[in-house]
Formats: sequence, C-alpha cells, structure tokens
Amino acid sequence: MPKLDLDAMMPENSTSYPPPFDQPVQGRWKRRLGAIAGLTELGACHVMLKPGAWSSQRHWHEGEDEFLVMLAGEAVLIEDEGETILRPGDCVAWAKGVANGHNVINRGAADCTFICFSAGDAKAGGFYSDIDMKWTADGYSHKDGTPY
Amino acid sequence: MPKLDLDAMMPENSTSYPPPFDQPVQGRWKRRLGAIAGLTELGACHVMLKPGAWSSQRHWHEGEDEFLVMLAGEAVLIEDEGETILRPGDCVAWAKGVANGHNVINRGAADCTFICFSAGDAKAGGFYSDIDMKWTADGYSHKDGTPY
Repeated sequence: MPKLDLDAMMPENSTSYPPPFDQPVQGRWKRRLGAIAGLTELGACHVMLKPGAWSSQRHWHEGEDEFLVMLAGEAVLIEDEGETILRPGDCVAWAKGVANGHNVINRGAADCTFICFSAGDAKAGGFYSDIDMKWTADGYSHKDGTPY
Repeated sequence: MPKLDLDAMMPENSTSYPPPFDQPVQGRWKRRLGAIAGLTELGACHVMLKPGAWSSQRHWHEGEDEFLVMLAGEAVLIEDEGETILRPGDCVAWAKGVANGHNVINRGAADCTFICFSAGDAKAGGFYSDIDMKWTADGYSHKDGTPY
C-alpha cells in the first residue's frame, strides 16, 4: 500500500486505565497505524504526548516485545535504572518477559512524537512497576488478583 | 534496557541473494537492532542506503507483516501502483499475504536512513515481483521450484 496518510487519521486519547491511573495519559494522542493498515502480526502505534503527558503507567510485558522510535521533540524514558533523554532518531527495545518497567514522559514545553511497535502474545499480560496493578487477558486487577 | 547505541553497532552489507540479484543491495548497510537487543518476536532492522542502493529486490511476504519508518534523507518506494517519495517521518505498512511487491531505492545524492519492522512467520517465505525468484524455509529458488 502507499505511505500512510497520518493527517487523515483522527488521533484518540482514550484509555482503559481505572482512575486515578488514567490521569497522566490524558494528553496522550494515539493513531493505531498497524490496525488501520490491516496488520495482524505487528502493532504500530503513533503517539503524540502533550507537555506533561505520560505514554503509559510504567510497565513491562510478559509475552510481547516492544520497540520505540523517537520522531520529534524530546521525552524522558523512565526505567528501573533511572532516566534517559530521548531525541529524534533514538531507539529503545524491550524484550518480552524482562521485568524492567518503562514509560516515557514529556517533561518539556513542546509536543513530542514517537512510534511504538509490538509483537508477540498480548494476552500473556504484564505488570506495572509503581502501582498496585497488573493485566491479563481478563483485564486489569490488583496484584493479588482482585479486579478493578 | 537503555536506548540503543547505534554508533557502537557495526553495520554490515552482506546479502544471501544469488548473483546478479545481489548487485543492487551492495550499498545497503544494516544494523539488526531487534536481534542485538534480544528481541525474538519483533524484527527491527536499521538500514542506511548509499546513493543508488536498493533496500532489497521488490518482494512481498506470505507470513510476515512489515512496517517502514523513514528517519533521514529521501528514498523512492516502488510498488505495483508506481512510485512514491519517502521523507523523514513517513510510514509505510505491508500486511502479510498481500501480493504487492515493494522495495525502496535511494535515487538521490545523499545517504538515506530508515528502520524496517517485521513480525509473523518468516518461514512462510514470499515472492519477488520483477525476477524469477521466490523464497521458502529452504532458501531461494526459481519460481518453478528449481533451487539457485
């Protein structure tokens, strides 16, 4: 197919996080490029973060690899080891099953943009590093298994 | 893991194409970011094309989705429908099993750079659009099955 027309795709900022965990991602605007293009094996999500917005709660995946490519602006990557500034062209990879939670926060005054790719078993779920939450094929729960 | 240190990764321009199909990709320099980072579900290949170089012979995959993100410079995307110029930030997606061959050629005077992502069943093989070649789990062959 020809190149994707991103301007023709309406971004959306919905989240299924239970409150109050939904608040930091209100300024996250996504275009699900992979699904729009008919991909079924490869996830590709174009993300624009407004100043102050988070990409997600800090998390890691049990069954999915992830890869982020920074396209525009500047963001801060948060992992167990600390913080790293990301600028256009920077790449970060997270192998499935590695228990090192990560997210990206826009602490600047301008928007920033990246694409996040994923592949593997999404239903295997994963864990959040800083809050009492995990997810499985059945949805979000406390770490003791009690549903939200 | 922290962001990938691309400068520390030696690019390579090897190809397993039989001659003369190997000639157009001599100026293609790859860094296999996904494998280097320990990913097993998601392929991520950073590619720099010298002027004149091709990304590959024009092809499509039976079992793998592909997604290209342009990072620097300019390239020409070739598909059944014709040609499209790609510039930084441009994205192209190819769903598995869609018989529309594609490749990217650097027709400019400067290097260009992109990352190509893939996921799915690599062993399902695929087909080349403009030459008498296909590939399977057993390697390259003529379209009638005779090996190269």
